[in-house]
Amino acid sequence: MSEVEHLLERARQRDAEDPLAGLRARFELPAQGIYLDGNSLGAPTLATIERVERTLHDEWATSLVAGWTAHDWIGLPERVGRKLAGIVGAEPTEVLVTDTTTINLFRLAWAARRLTEDRRRVLIERDNFPADNYMLQGLAESFPFPTELVPLPAHELASAVDHRTAMVVASHVSYRSGAILDLDELVEAARPHGTLTLVDLAHSAGVVPVELSARGIDLAVGCGYKYLNGGPGAPAFLYVRKALQDRVLGPLWGWLGHAEPFAFEPDYRPASGIRRHLCGTPPILSLSALDEALEVLGEVDIERVRAKSMALTDAFVAAVESGTDRLELVSPREADARGSQVAWRHPEAWPIVRALQARGIVGDFRAPDLARFGFAPLYNRHEEAVRAGLALAEVVETRAYDDPRFRERRAVT
Amino acid sequence: MSEVEHLLERARQRDAEDPLAGLRARFELPAQGIYLDGNSLGAPTLATIERVERTLHDEWATSLVAGWTAHDWIGLPERVGRKLAGIVGAEPTEVLVTDTTTINLFRLAWAARRLTEDRRRVLIERDNFPADNYMLQGLAESFPFPTELVPLPAHELASAVDHRTAMVVASHVSYRSGAILDLDELVEAARPHGTLTLVDLAHSAGVVPVELSARGIDLAVGCGYKYLNGGPGAPAFLYVRKALQDRVLGPLWGWLGHAEPFAFEPDYRPASGIRRHLCGTPPILSLSALDEALEVLGEVDIERVRAKSMALTDAFVAAVESGTDRLELVSPREADARGSQVAWRHPEAWPIVRALQARGIVGDFRAPDLARFGFAPLYNRHEEAVRAGLALAEVVETRAYDDPRFRERRAVT
Repeated sequence: MSEVEHLLERARQRDAEDPLAGLRARFELPAQGIYLDGNSLGAPTLATIERVERTLHDEWATSLVAGWTAHDWIGLPERVGRKLAGIVGAEPTEVLVTDTTTINLFRLAWAARRLTEDRRRVLIERDNFPADNYMLQGLAESFPFPTELVPLPAHELASAVDHRTAMVVASHVSYRSGAILDLDELVEAARPHGTLTLVDLAHSAGVVPVELSARGIDLAVGCGYKYLNGGPGAPAFLYVRKALQDRVLGPLWGWLGHAEPFAFEPDYRPASGIRRHLCGTPPILSLSALDEALEVLGEVDIERVRAKSMALTDAFVAAVESGTDRLELVSPREADARGSQVAWRHPEAWPIVRALQARGIVGDFRAPDLARFGFAPLYNRHEEAVRAGLALAEVVETRAYDDPRFRERRAVT
Repeated sequence: MSEVEHLLERARQRDAEDPLAGLRARFELPAQGIYLDGNSLGAPTLATIERVERTLHDEWATSLVAGWTAHDWIGLPERVGRKLAGIVGAEPTEVLVTDTTTINLFRLAWAARRLTEDRRRVLIERDNFPADNYMLQGLAESFPFPTELVPLPAHELASAVDHRTAMVVASHVSYRSGAILDLDELVEAARPHGTLTLVDLAHSAGVVPVELSARGIDLAVGCGYKYLNGGPGAPAFLYVRKALQDRVLGPLWGWLGHAEPFAFEPDYRPASGIRRHLCGTPPILSLSALDEALEVLGEVDIERVRAKSMALTDAFVAAVESGTDRLELVSPREADARGSQVAWRHPEAWPIVRALQARGIVGDFRAPDLARFGFAPLYNRHEEAVRAGLALAEVVETRAYDDPRFRERRAVT
């Protein structure tokens, strides 16, 4: 048996034994191809599509404004938050679904600065998703007290915390390399100094156990459209540690975050608990989709999801490396140090990604030279990981990417 | 012929002659009842429902991440903005659809304060929708330079503007009384002092001609789910006058508002034009709904919509007053001074609204004592206005509201 045959055989065996294998049928996936970009946009479940259709016909068109109470639309941000809390290891009242990841980052980072006005240093992850750092730059420019942003590589953040540090902002899993940040080390470094921790869970929620409460993370944000499968531009979420909730208040004072929204009082009084971070009217179509999408994750043990995720990325790396040594593995080699994605560096990463797309294998490109592949354990199969890895190696070895139609540049998100 | 018969007869005649009458069939409305709350949540068109279904099946499920380019999801905030610009009388590049009304208010009010740092006075409408004032209170508390909020009745705003005034923030149409603010008077008062104008169009966009550009309004925000029929919690919009666009920058620096979002540069550089106000990933399901909903308004002359709106509210007021004098008309008596809603004051407004709901007539209650009825000229009929007015008068005269089941309090939005 050749190495390729052996890899495929083992993958098929793993698929046969996979306790999560049955979940794939719950998703509406294209008939052809291998989708390895669920880390950018997750796939819909059949139930999610049906739920939005019901929301359109049986809720909006039927109940009109009465839907706010009849279908408890008004309670959705907290209800979906409670579901999500179970997935990221928080208490039910510690998570709220609202706005976008970047708006939530602004809101919580601002609140954290308010609690640490006497300090000016904010440690940020140098290679974090740029949106996070842009937002913190905006905050530094607009916050009434001086804020000094200190960009550092993720692994240097913990050791750089000292008594001058107001806050540390970092991603749990790097959007580029997939490297997992050691949150325990970060909290251990931050807590003695009273430094607040704010973690972006965009690339970990739903695929890597987060354990926010157990770890004592202070604040977190995350997005609903990657491994949570909430749909393109799904609402985001935020988390505030219970003990801090009555002291954490952002600058975005909105109607629905008022202690009594329907009293129409002239002055703002923040609601107690997590609800104070609500602001404008929640987007019900999008929220309903996310609500339904979370059902699948609610049924499975996140540790099982994690185990499959590691097996998938391992299988992919092994398949790639069985066929080529011309790709540099940018993600950590050890599965337990990376999230559910694998990134390779190659000067021709863009046409390589495009050549794979032409073969029905969807990964993505991150400038300037990364080809990135995400694995969604709820619907990806081990055999897909191996086939994709073999195809990637072949495209690189045969220089199949060296074709003008693959070099054309287009924006992809 | 009795007065009641006469009112009904005239209404039927108006319906028969109504050039907009055919539009009603485009909407999916409950078979029974009279819906007079389109000023809170507009009804869906059949095409809107189909569009979201297509977005689910043919876009998200089929294209997955490729949808960002294949279906130009990434361009939706600006594309829908261009459509909306035609409806509110702005240039195509002056409107952007993003986030919520309150977030947009924060963003633009902040930017306006940045341009007027040397002044501290911000005139606000005392009786504005509380969300707007809460947000400005949050801004006053968080802005690095002192901000003094001066709450005044709407009609006193223009005369209170002087050289110390940084900005005036008001609603075009009052959410309570429906009174229209004289925007020309406001701009005329503000401009000589270099005072910026920021107008909330929540209750005028789509039903009252706004003429933002012609009037020289500086900044505006508005919501997508009232007369624009974009669905519950539809994305909101913002407007920045062309001449100001390169100087207006809020504190919410996001990825999609970067000059080159896909270059993943470490530092934020605002895009030129209106796109800089984009921030996080746009909610595609909700945006698609709004995009489609605007088609109907795009086909009609807003002056026609306005004419029908005035006729509807006139017919309603006449019907109510034909049957009772126990309700105080809080809205302006002259149709040209009010938007598309009519509010009545009565100490028993809450059970009155509930008693009407029990008869299939949906209006809403605004604390402490207002019964409010909105008229959507795209789908409401003159006969509905008269029947609702007669029913309201009867409920009041017969004290049909005096029933324990109508006194139970529930939150309604």
